Amino acid sequence: MSASVAAVTGLYQEVQQFYADQMRLLDGGAVAEWARTFTEDGVFAANALPEPIRGRAAIEAGARAAAEELARSGVRRRHWLGMVSVRPGTDDASLSVHSYALVLATPRGGKPTVHASTSCVDDLVRDGAGWLVRHRRVTRDDLV
Amino acid sequence: MSASVAAVTGLYQEVQQFYADQMRLLDGGAVAEWARTFTEDGVFAANALPEPIRGRAAIEAGARAAAEELARSGVRRRHWLGMVSVRPGTDDASLSVHSYALVLATPRGGKPTVHASTSCVDDLVRDGAGWLVRHRRVTRDDLV
Amino acid sequence: MSASVAAVTGLYQEVQQFYADQMRLLDGGAVAEWARTFTEDGVFAANALPEPIRGRAAIEAGARAAAEELARSGVRRRHWLGMVSVRPGTDDASLSVHSYALVLATPRGGKPTVHASTSCVDDLVRDGAGWLVRHRRVTRDDLV
Repeated sequence: MSASVAAVTGLYQEVQQFYADQMRLLDGGAVAEWARTFTEDGVFAANALPEPIRGRAAIEAGARAAAEELARSGVRRRHWLGMVSVRPGTDDASLSVHSYALVLATPRGGKPTVHASTSCVDDLVRDGAGWLVRHRRVTRDDLV
Repeated sequence: MSASVAAVTGLYQEVQQFYADQMRLLDGGAVAEWARTFTEDGVFAANALPEPIRGRAAIEAGARAAAEELARSGVRRRHWLGMVSVRPGTDDASLSVHSYALVLATPRGGKPTVHASTSCVDDLVRDGAGWLVRHRRVTRDDLV
Repeated sequence: MSASVAAVTGLYQEVQQFYADQMRLLDGGAVAEWARTFTEDGVFAANALPEPIRGRAAIEAGARAAAEELARSGVRRRHWLGMVSVRPGTDDASLSVHSYALVLATPRGGKPTVHASTSCVDDLVRDGAGWLVRHRRVTRDDLV
């Protein structure tokens, strides 16, 4: 564990900022911009889905449908991602990142609740000075 | 996004530690010390307030009243700030920081609840080796 | 505050990754590996315990009993540690780390709840390129 930490330590805060920006786009309804944080051939897999969503266009379409449903219902969602563990990926230009993610849901005029507790495994790849998600796997704790 | 990340990346963990210390002061009832993490002319704006609170003295007075009310009620609050995104500010000595913040509330002998889910936009300015809040805007999700 | 931040700033993300890995071991039921993130003579003190648990073997035994109970009940726990504040420790090879920690609990097929809100004070010591907990004190907010 220690060696890999040392190897990637300079990247840790870069990854944290990437996630902060990525989730803010989703929660703010900027679905097209959010989808562009995945590679063109990016995959979004989840134990809440019957099969993985493949490709940026499909990922965007899925998020758009969810965002419109939330807008109709007057519920604000916030994705909190934390407990980030960064390791070298399968090649020099990629990272394997494990994290926990919570979804907070607040109805207009109501109290926030923890909508879902999940764990997340990402395969991130370099994109210029930034990062893109090539593969994401989200596991909801209630479905395990 | 990527360029700005690169530009400020060395500051990211500094900002995280600043927030950890700032919130710990507030949650621990060290109201005067907490108020000193704002500039003398600091502004605290929130959609839960009729108008912004202006100046460190007024910010301290507001926090003190809230802390005394909490102490009477036997409820412990914890401010969790996360999903931090750091960008250069309007000048060389400032940062613009977006974050999410949760308020957890635990009554003595009872269960914790998420009291509020918010987003926060700070204008931070250099103060020696540290930082001060010059302007904070907190938006509660339930009031949007 | 500022000076100490400057002194330890390079270690901040290292400590964050250490906690992410440590909590993931515990939440994943890897109790023996988790216990090895404490020193052989490590101490785990908590206001929820009648007295501190002393030594890695006793720490492991305690965690194993808790993990088995959780497995039987079908509840998935996630330890979120955040609001990390890193300061130099009592000697050159140690750190004093204050943090907040939440325990999320999700029953199979059910909704997550915040099981506990706590604060944590750790004494971390160097172990090669990594860290070990020499002393941990966890304070549950509901028991204060």
